[in-house]
Amino acid sequence: MDPSIYKIVELVGTSPNGWEEAVESVVTRASKTLRNIRIVEVLKLDAKVDDGKVILYRAKVNLSFKFE
Amino acid sequence: MDPSIYKIVELVGTSPNGWEEAVESVVTRASKTLRNIRIVEVLKLDAKVDDGKVILYRAKVNLSFKFE
Amino acid sequence: MDPSIYKIVELVGTSPNGWEEAVESVVTRASKTLRNIRIVEVLKLDAKVDDGKVILYRAKVNLSFKFE
Amino acid sequence: MDPSIYKIVELVGTSPNGWEEAVESVVTRASKTLRNIRIVEVLKLDAKVDDGKVILYRAKVNLSFKFE
Amino acid sequence: MDPSIYKIVELVGTSPNGWEEAVESVVTRASKTLRNIRIVEVLKLDAKVDDGKVILYRAKVNLSFKFE
Amino acid sequence: MDPSIYKIVELVGTSPNGWEEAVESVVTRASKTLRNIRIVEVLKLDAKVDDGKVILYRAKVNLSFKFE
Amino acid sequence: MDPSIYKIVELVGTSPNGWEEAVESVVTRASKTLRNIRIVEVLKLDAKVDDGKVILYRAKVNLSFKFE
Amino acid sequence: MDPSIYKIVELVGTSPNGWEEAVESVVTRASKTLRNIRIVEVLKLDAKVDDGKVILYRAKVNLSFKFE
Amino acid sequence: MDPSIYKIVELVGTSPNGWEEAVESVVTRASKTLRNIRIVEVLKLDAKVDDGKVILYRAKVNLSFKFE
Amino acid sequence: MDPSIYKIVELVGTSPNGWEEAVESVVTRASKTLRNIRIVEVLKLDAKVDDGKVILYRAKVNLSFKFE
Amino acid sequence: MDPSIYKIVELVGTSPNGWEEAVESVVTRASKTLRNIRIVEVLKLDAKVDDGKVILYRAKVNLSFKFE
Amino acid sequence: MDPSIYKIVELVGTSPNGWEEAVESVVTRASKTLRNIRIVEVLKLDAKVDDGKVILYRAKVNLSFKFE
Repeated sequence: MDPSIYKIVELVGTSPNGWEEAVESVVTRASKTLRNIRIVEVLKLDAKVDDGKVILYRAKVNLSFKFE
Repeated sequence: MDPSIYKIVELVGTSPNGWEEAVESVVTRASKTLRNIRIVEVLKLDAKVDDGKVILYRAKVNLSFKFE
Repeated sequence: MDPSIYKIVELVGTSPNGWEEAVESVVTRASKTLRNIRIVEVLKLDAKVDDGKVILYRAKVNLSFKFE
Repeated sequence: MDPSIYKIVELVGTSPNGWEEAVESVVTRASKTLRNIRIVEVLKLDAKVDDGKVILYRAKVNLSFKFE
Repeated sequence: MDPSIYKIVELVGTSPNGWEEAVESVVTRASKTLRNIRIVEVLKLDAKVDDGKVILYRAKVNLSFKFE
Repeated sequence: MDPSIYKIVELVGTSPNGWEEAVESVVTRASKTLRNIRIVEVLKLDAKVDDGKVILYRAKVNLSFKFE
Repeated sequence: MDPSIYKIVELVGTSPNGWEEAVESVVTRASKTLRNIRIVEVLKLDAKVDDGKVILYRAKVNLSFKFE
Repeated sequence: MDPSIYKIVELVGTSPNGWEEAVESVVTRASKTLRNIRIVEVLKLDAKVDDGKVILYRAKVNLSFKFE
Repeated sequence: MDPSIYKIVELVGTSPNGWEEAVESVVTRASKTLRNIRIVEVLKLDAKVDDGKVILYRAKVNLSFKFE
Repeated sequence: MDPSIYKIVELVGTSPNGWEEAVESVVTRASKTLRNIRIVEVLKLDAKVDDGKVILYRAKVNLSFKFE
Repeated sequence: MDPSIYKIVELVGTSPNGWEEAVESVVTRASKTLRNIRIVEVLKLDAKVDDGKVILYRAKVNLSFKFE
Repeated sequence: MDPSIYKIVELVGTSPNGWEEAVESVVTRASKTLRNIRIVEVLKLDAKVDDGKVILYRAKVNLSFKFE
């Protein structure tokens, strides 16, 4: 790692299928506007429930990337 | 959301297959006695180990539902 | 549980496939030198990202085992 | 205080008018089924926003009462 | 441990004699209505003081038991 | 909630009149540049004091909104 | 701010009318003996309840002032 | 409780015999200069060890009392 | 204290009689292999319950000792 | 302070020479695009190590500035 | 350490030159009125920024000393 | 980073000259017995005071290294 500056942003991703896919959805979407993402850290996992079933997994994450 | 009251209860679910299944087992079981569950939040993930292998995944969660 | 002493060590496991596999890799590896591991607890989940994709899942865990 | 046992339950109250009213709504509603409530403690304050305006104040609280 | 569901409730016990007795008073009292309590975890210890003396020990605890 | 991505930003609002007004001032101001704000969460409440009187209420909050 | 030293003290204020008044009561009372109070920070909000009604709002705060 | 102001101070008590005695030693000593102490809350328990034996129990506590 | 290096390890001790004895059991046992233990700090206290009675006190602690 | 709105962003700065220089590098770099920075708060300090030597100091900080 | 009582006070020191000097300024200033200070613990480090430069380092600390 | 396992140990380093030197002393000393240390993270900074002067800086850190 060179003496660079990194920025950390907090995002929430969702998926009907699971938490890993919710995290990946954040990374995929954020990569369209943020270059050089290097770490995604899980802050909180929860899910929406309807009629006794988990219907939407949510992952709150911190994304860190080079601040250019 | 209408001006309702919600209650939050803390439960631990288990599964031999993974943490998402452990969380789902809590939701399924709790839905038998609690109506209108809307959010399940993960508080802690751990697992029992035996003979060098994970044998039981455990998820401590908060369930929130309408307090009727 | 008999009146024994347990020790807790902090480890980080990694996997290209997911967090459960990252946790299992710690348990498998640690079992070669530590006997009687009984609980693995997740402390933190993050992942390395490259070119807009998650490439390495990491799980920081506490392992508890009998202190003999 | 005599040597009694107290129970603590976690609830979320809401109000369109403010957080104190959201807290009072929890106390009023819970008093219908729980006797001898003595303390309400604020755990978290948030609010729903729509069209640039706060529309619903929410207060997550702990209620403690005699366990009879 | 079989793949069961556990529930966790928060209680406060008191005793004029000490914190261990305060914790035991919670377990004894709760056992009258809750079956299969397995763990009591200390969350907070405090005490009431009067005229320069500790007069009532209080223990806030989490009790976990099978959710049947 | 559809499978969208949400972003969370941390802001501090102020008001000479009270904390709810301080929170509302953040929401009003942020809505000029951020669309689809849905939740404002209180992180910290403090106030400036001068000559023995509260002169400025401050609320540190998290705002979440759709990441488009 | 000049290179001064500040002291922080923890106090609890109460009011039958609301939390802002409880905080102001601390500032007013403390200003009689502490000069140059500059910040009051909320640490915890709770309230006493009697007969299903909030009867006393309490605010635990940190007060910072110049240490002369 | 009347609408009074309370102050909270942080102290560490010690005892060669146990933590409850360490807490009581703080209350006894502090009562010489502080009137109307009402609550002592445990913040941290530790102990000094020498030659494989606990030789001094220490309790860090918060004491709250009327601010007159 | 000379400019030495200290190491901290996390252990869990148990006792059927109380938490102080659980802590002492860790110190006694660890002293067989670790020299120059100087501080034991309580991280968490819980207990196993069976048939409505506390049957095993557990203390999770940090032990610090000279790293030679 | 006038009744303004402030924004807080999380950044990581690095320096081969020390943590204060790592913090200053964040402030210097961020000042190119953010006007009216007023506070930098340290959230976490760590460092990269190679061959038994600290080679890169890192400081995770919060920067607050006027939200114009 | 003899079975004494210690008190802990929270202070903020400042310095234009660095955090260690900010901490030392607290110790030097407090020693004029508090005897037998033995430990200073860092609680938070931040700094004031003006025109893109750190102009005042601040250290919030806990000071512990004999309570005589 | 390849799919390796890392271990984290908690240590306290000391120095009469400053916290960075206290951290470096841990890294230097630990490198004699631990290979492939890669990160040192600061957990807590404090110092011993004597006669109104800081005489020994202490840094509690986590060291992570390859678990081979």
